[in-house]
Amino acid sequence: MSRDSSPDANLYRQHLAALQQRAEAALAATGHEALVIASGIEKFAFLDDRPYGFQPNPHFKHWVPLTEHPHSWLAVRPGRKPRVVVYQPADYWHVPPSPPSGAWVDEVELVLISEPEQAVAALQDVLGPRTAVIGELDAALPGITPNNPEALLHRLHWARACKTPWELAQMRAASRRAAPAHAAARAAFLAGASEAEIHRAYLVASSHTDRDLPYANIVALNEHAAVLHYQHQDVASPPQARSLLIDAGAQVNGYASDITRTTAAPGHERFAALIELMEREQLGLVAEVREGTDYRDIHLSSHHRLARVLLESGLARPGTSAEALVAERVTHAFYPHGIGHLLGLQVHDIGGHMASELGGTRERPEGHRYLRLTRTLAPGMVVTIEPGLYFIPMLLDALRASPAAAAVDWARVAELAPYGGIRIEDDVACGAGDAAPENLTREAFARMGDAQ
Amino acid sequence: MSRDSSPDANLYRQHLAALQQRAEAALAATGHEALVIASGIEKFAFLDDRPYGFQPNPHFKHWVPLTEHPHSWLAVRPGRKPRVVVYQPADYWHVPPSPPSGAWVDEVELVLISEPEQAVAALQDVLGPRTAVIGELDAALPGITPNNPEALLHRLHWARACKTPWELAQMRAASRRAAPAHAAARAAFLAGASEAEIHRAYLVASSHTDRDLPYANIVALNEHAAVLHYQHQDVASPPQARSLLIDAGAQVNGYASDITRTTAAPGHERFAALIELMEREQLGLVAEVREGTDYRDIHLSSHHRLARVLLESGLARPGTSAEALVAERVTHAFYPHGIGHLLGLQVHDIGGHMASELGGTRERPEGHRYLRLTRTLAPGMVVTIEPGLYFIPMLLDALRASPAAAAVDWARVAELAPYGGIRIEDDVACGAGDAAPENLTREAFARMGDAQ
Repeated sequence: MSRDSSPDANLYRQHLAALQQRAEAALAATGHEALVIASGIEKFAFLDDRPYGFQPNPHFKHWVPLTEHPHSWLAVRPGRKPRVVVYQPADYWHVPPSPPSGAWVDEVELVLISEPEQAVAALQDVLGPRTAVIGELDAALPGITPNNPEALLHRLHWARACKTPWELAQMRAASRRAAPAHAAARAAFLAGASEAEIHRAYLVASSHTDRDLPYANIVALNEHAAVLHYQHQDVASPPQARSLLIDAGAQVNGYASDITRTTAAPGHERFAALIELMEREQLGLVAEVREGTDYRDIHLSSHHRLARVLLESGLARPGTSAEALVAERVTHAFYPHGIGHLLGLQVHDIGGHMASELGGTRERPEGHRYLRLTRTLAPGMVVTIEPGLYFIPMLLDALRASPAAAAVDWARVAELAPYGGIRIEDDVACGAGDAAPENLTREAFARMGDAQ
Repeated sequence: MSRDSSPDANLYRQHLAALQQRAEAALAATGHEALVIASGIEKFAFLDDRPYGFQPNPHFKHWVPLTEHPHSWLAVRPGRKPRVVVYQPADYWHVPPSPPSGAWVDEVELVLISEPEQAVAALQDVLGPRTAVIGELDAALPGITPNNPEALLHRLHWARACKTPWELAQMRAASRRAAPAHAAARAAFLAGASEAEIHRAYLVASSHTDRDLPYANIVALNEHAAVLHYQHQDVASPPQARSLLIDAGAQVNGYASDITRTTAAPGHERFAALIELMEREQLGLVAEVREGTDYRDIHLSSHHRLARVLLESGLARPGTSAEALVAERVTHAFYPHGIGHLLGLQVHDIGGHMASELGGTRERPEGHRYLRLTRTLAPGMVVTIEPGLYFIPMLLDALRASPAAAAVDWARVAELAPYGGIRIEDDVACGAGDAAPENLTREAFARMGDAQ
């Protein structure tokens, strides 16, 4: 059997070598001899035989692109190929997980099992008192109990923020899978579709079902856009559709994209102009993604940029300073969430608040409690950049009752509140040194010849 | 405030009184003074902040039609109105659960809380050493630890099989919600749609999203129908669509319908004729749902009826007896699952194998390991009746290698295997005495003027 020498196979080989190197270093540093990772098992509702959708352990799918394979395992030993134990039941109740295929198969020691318990024998030689086992407790088998050593997890989580070239390729593909679906959703909106219909147009164009989306789509018309994680979908179109905010991603080999677009209906020029201002600042924030930049500074920058938008759009009264709008938390009332987060195997990839590979917390800037990433950017990190501007009644009511109320043109707020809000979100890979970042999302849109 | 005297409110009032009576009896019999029920909390993926879809504790939604209300509680005390503690956060991240409204609000003692921990104070007077707490352990709060007393659960689970008139009304509505969606799915199939498109047509017509279906739809074209719980959906139409098997339900106030239909494409007369034979037997099995009938006998009857279908259709060779086809497990190879199950708050409503309200197991007939219901039917029980006939390669290969192979016309099997299989499933309520059962599903189809 000749080895696959395609560019993709080579990238995967490098990826696996990088993970092996990281794992060996982490094992040595934490006094472990081997690492075993459970893919996980299905969970069931209380007193019920109905499963929740299977969610694989991210540590497992980091090594092999197997995302629908419960009862499977991975073993890492220094100086050896990874062993992958794949559960392949003889089953006529369900479609069995796809049989192992692809470039990764040549790079690992593959063991197929047809009963979950056969994993015990398949891992016997790797198990010992100094074996780390990463997984949920419900995945335990006789002699294999997840112990999830914290010091080891810290090291692996820390390293995972920086993506290998193979991972970046998956994430480019995930943006490319989502971009035409965003275009389809936008077209459905402009044609008068309901939230549920826009959602379905998105699914069709991304070839995703709800079950394999990386997160539940947010599809919000009009005022619904003011609910940050709006989780419903009206089946009927509103009498007048003024605005669409859609936050929706795609998945490729277990890697996610996470993209938000906001669209004004034709004839709603003032809101369209506000989107344009936000887009200008969003692109400015994307350009701030550089090696060595403290991501917290990008978050703080986003508040100053939003203050400028508030002033230029007339939402803040002339004569107010941008600095005062930030200091008096006026920008917070319009934009209560963080500028973004790590992205990768998880939509909110783990480790965003780590102080170092030893753990510890790198604090959020004071008064910014929802920021999900506080680390200094490094090459290969993929982050979202997603500034927002919303008309959230609960927050604006409080602002209006505060001394800072005078800084706001409440008539302008009332005029724009029926649009709900704006969020524009791209997935951005940090480059090395002075290199400009790679905007995975804009490049995906550009490739499809769409100017969004 | 005048009391709601609509028929629906009256039904609900009777329902609540029945549950109260059952609970009081169960509490007295098991030495408890009060019952507290947790609605449950959201679960999260491993090392992730992404929640699974919320699944309410069925014991909670039994009392009040609240299905999207985590962190909520119910307290039952002898001789008192139930107390319902509803969590209503002030939240701009999500659409908060709908505020309590409807006939049930007048019948309970309602307490609204805005923080999960406030439930402790709201339940303080009900908690004590003889309080039963039903819920998952992750719902625990200081002083409120689910203990799930088995003897109490047995009594409640046993009683739940028989639905109150209010519950039957919800289940009729759930069938009515699904029937037009099945018609839409069928129309999409006949128009050449893919599995994913048929699924979406179903969602549109039922006004359901994937998230609120009672179970994941099975939408299987051609050979896919031979996978009993076929969980994928091809996004592309096959070159030739010969058959559709769709198993899909709907939900109303937390109660499920569970309906399967199989359709032959025009011009596939031999398969259409096989569906007709199966439908005749399915209706015969529905008619067997009577008070006092052992459900296991209906299951055994389904094997004898299937044997008849195998003979009439030429799948079994002439001269073979129906009895032999059952005894030699030929029918098993074509029909490996059970005839049905209890239906209600859960798609597989709990308690199907109970020997009595004290627990214990009423065994399955020997050799019938997948039967989910073994009880004697009683008025108000709602069961599914879902015989099947499939061409499952794994099972047919084994049959062909066995002495019983001679009973089968393998050329006929080869001819029909490309259709995958047939399942026809209705939801049926058992009547009292000699009364014929109520076929909730057929009546729902009939109401929409559809002859399916």
